[in-house]
Amino acid sequence: MIFMETNELKELKNDVLKKISPTHEERAYLEETAELLRKKIEHIAHGMNLKDVSVTLVGSAARNTWISGTHDLDLFIMFPSETSNEELEKNGMEIARKIAKEAESFEERYAEHPYINMIYRGFDVDIVPCFRVKSASCIRSAVDRTPFHNEFVKKNIYGLESEVLLLKQFMKGIGVYGSELRTQGFSGYLTELLIIKYGSFEEVINSACEWQPGTYIDLKSHGTIQHTDPLVVIDPTDPKRNVAAALSLDKFCFFIDACRQFRVCPTMDFFFPKPVTLMSDTELLQKMKSRGTAFIAILFNTPDVVEDVLYPQLHKMEQAVVSLLETHEFKVLNKGSWSGEKTIILLELMSATLPQLRKHRGPPVWIYKHADSFKAKYGTSKDVFAFYIENGTYIAEVPRKYSEASSLLKEKLNSCSMGKHVSCAVKKGFEVLKDGEICSISERDFKLFLMNWPKV
Amino acid sequence: MIFMETNELKELKNDVLKKISPTHEERAYLEETAELLRKKIEHIAHGMNLKDVSVTLVGSAARNTWISGTHDLDLFIMFPSETSNEELEKNGMEIARKIAKEAESFEERYAEHPYINMIYRGFDVDIVPCFRVKSASCIRSAVDRTPFHNEFVKKNIYGLESEVLLLKQFMKGIGVYGSELRTQGFSGYLTELLIIKYGSFEEVINSACEWQPGTYIDLKSHGTIQHTDPLVVIDPTDPKRNVAAALSLDKFCFFIDACRQFRVCPTMDFFFPKPVTLMSDTELLQKMKSRGTAFIAILFNTPDVVEDVLYPQLHKMEQAVVSLLETHEFKVLNKGSWSGEKTIILLELMSATLPQLRKHRGPPVWIYKHADSFKAKYGTSKDVFAFYIENGTYIAEVPRKYSEASSLLKEKLNSCSMGKHVSCAVKKGFEVLKDGEICSISERDFKLFLMNWPKV
Repeated sequence: MIFMETNELKELKNDVLKKISPTHEERAYLEETAELLRKKIEHIAHGMNLKDVSVTLVGSAARNTWISGTHDLDLFIMFPSETSNEELEKNGMEIARKIAKEAESFEERYAEHPYINMIYRGFDVDIVPCFRVKSASCIRSAVDRTPFHNEFVKKNIYGLESEVLLLKQFMKGIGVYGSELRTQGFSGYLTELLIIKYGSFEEVINSACEWQPGTYIDLKSHGTIQHTDPLVVIDPTDPKRNVAAALSLDKFCFFIDACRQFRVCPTMDFFFPKPVTLMSDTELLQKMKSRGTAFIAILFNTPDVVEDVLYPQLHKMEQAVVSLLETHEFKVLNKGSWSGEKTIILLELMSATLPQLRKHRGPPVWIYKHADSFKAKYGTSKDVFAFYIENGTYIAEVPRKYSEASSLLKEKLNSCSMGKHVSCAVKKGFEVLKDGEICSISERDFKLFLMNWPKV
Repeated sequence: MIFMETNELKELKNDVLKKISPTHEERAYLEETAELLRKKIEHIAHGMNLKDVSVTLVGSAARNTWISGTHDLDLFIMFPSETSNEELEKNGMEIARKIAKEAESFEERYAEHPYINMIYRGFDVDIVPCFRVKSASCIRSAVDRTPFHNEFVKKNIYGLESEVLLLKQFMKGIGVYGSELRTQGFSGYLTELLIIKYGSFEEVINSACEWQPGTYIDLKSHGTIQHTDPLVVIDPTDPKRNVAAALSLDKFCFFIDACRQFRVCPTMDFFFPKPVTLMSDTELLQKMKSRGTAFIAILFNTPDVVEDVLYPQLHKMEQAVVSLLETHEFKVLNKGSWSGEKTIILLELMSATLPQLRKHRGPPVWIYKHADSFKAKYGTSKDVFAFYIENGTYIAEVPRKYSEASSLLKEKLNSCSMGKHVSCAVKKGFEVLKDGEICSISERDFKLFLMNWPKV
């Protein structure tokens, strides 16, 4: 099946574009603001006697691939590559802070180097000091790559901007847009490269229907490294880098699945999903009960870190908790985490209780020494339910230490490997909630999470 | 540690022997009865004009290795090896039936050939027609081997009879004596060979403490075949045969374990275990409940077949039932069977109920055709609890057909592979009992079985 550009599809695309293309006024205001900031930065740099410092607007604003209503501006202050880290940080932040004084609000943030994020004339502005290097393969910091991306896209995207907008909105609508570690989806740069590769929104959809893990796109045929990610899109500015490295297998598959659905029945809902009606607490409880499983939630205060730090730690914690439960013979059906003011790890088990006894398998009877000491330990112990031979080894039926999943979690959670910040937050205190108690968490977004469970 | 013949042990052996050695009178009466039967058979054969037919007393009675109180006589009517199967059966059974007329009771039984079992002067007598062959390696029927065993043991056991008695009684006491398929333990012939090999009861005990699976005993160093049984004792009369082939791994281990215990603390209890006091129904129920597991019993009329036919079929049924339960995600902790007037397959589960839903894993999303038809089937079905992608494959959470183990057994037991007679008995009707209901079965021997559970 091939996706044909029917009149209906044309119409749909036009309808979507009407909603997402910036108006002339919006565009003019953005350009004016960017220019204003650029000049201010140059003026300040000049005043500081910093020669050879330039300013570049990067990101979707620079490439005309931004969606109406999103007001992001990324301005990079580029220092000569010989600049020391200390100088870059000192001078870069001095400039940025001066600009920030005029902002509605601002905060200093840290990636590899510090930068400033501020709200200025209604725009979400990042002012990022970086090194101006010769090529993307000799960058000194991850952000140094951005100007190269910018240059490549600007050179190749002309005339295809609307296609990028459609693809971005489609991905937003179905929930796979964003390469941050919470979403593990497609970055803006990745959507642009896909449009450059396939030429149009429909052709990306068409191709994605047939994607398989290992799909390999290399616009410049210069890739040098073997990647194991589900989708590999070699960075045209850096042969070693996979632009789609952050994309998870499930988001990759989810996109494929949505493309196939869209191809069969292309509707506005993919771009703008209908708002969901929240279930009542009674309905939610009923939904949980009807599954016949056992729900357990671990609740703690959300640590004060950015999402890109938080989410990997939450995923690590999920894994560790599942391991802990499974080591103690609890069977975990589904797991997930949600974070708002509080953070919740939610687990769905086959059963939250297990028998009083546990079969503890000892050594084979014929390994005399081990058999002897196992038998000495368990053979006549009063706590042991039964001691016998099965398939050539001793079995001691010993009392199960944790026959309730909640007791296990309460006692052993702190010994789980969870990442620094999450571990620290959990150590300060956590609660374990069961089944109905979980519905008592009132945040609307958490109720949505429960409603969609086990899709996470 | 080596087992020393201390005075205490000598005393214990003497005490045991006093209880199990036949008295002079008992012995004389047995010999007289055997001789009487031998003469009668010869007389009848003579009357039928059967020349070259001889009669031999075989088994423990012939070898002076029988325990006081056991009154077994095995008389073999030996026909020339050229005799046809038909003639052997016809003439052999004609003689046997004539003898049987004088018995207190008798029945015709079938192994490879028919034979007669009867009660005669208080003895349990088998009259078995067989072929007189040149050597045990060219037997025409399994029973033809027996006279060779008889000859070998008689030649080698002289002076060691008491040691055989002690070993047999020890094995009886701990429950590993008997090579029938119910017990899967040590045959009489095997105990005799062990005594011949090791020279004394203590030396068998000593050696068994160090046994490992694969222990290999070949008195004549003439074994020709690789055996995989835990204990291999090559038949001195047949280089291809393992006399211990019927011994199960667990009975083998149980014997090792008991030998080690006995070596540490040799007491009369090993030979004559103290009678157990039966638990009351309340105590039994309490014992079952304290385990926190779920018991399920399948109850049906015992098929009218000998134990050697019944027990392998019961073990097959156990396996099939466990497979059935585990296929449907029930976790079986222990299994066993008991047979009296009724037969019971008893199962102990982690839980007898499972969640309403079951995660049904579909194909990977990228296998387009399969993914498509899986999604068509489950993606929008009203019965499906949830449909989503996990680790690259579709998951449909479908209603579990059997969330109760008892319903599963009631509906699907008849499709299990259980062996001819058991299957037939089950088809005529069975009951499924749960937990407390199981204690309502009143047979004393079944209550013992429950008391010892899960040792079977």
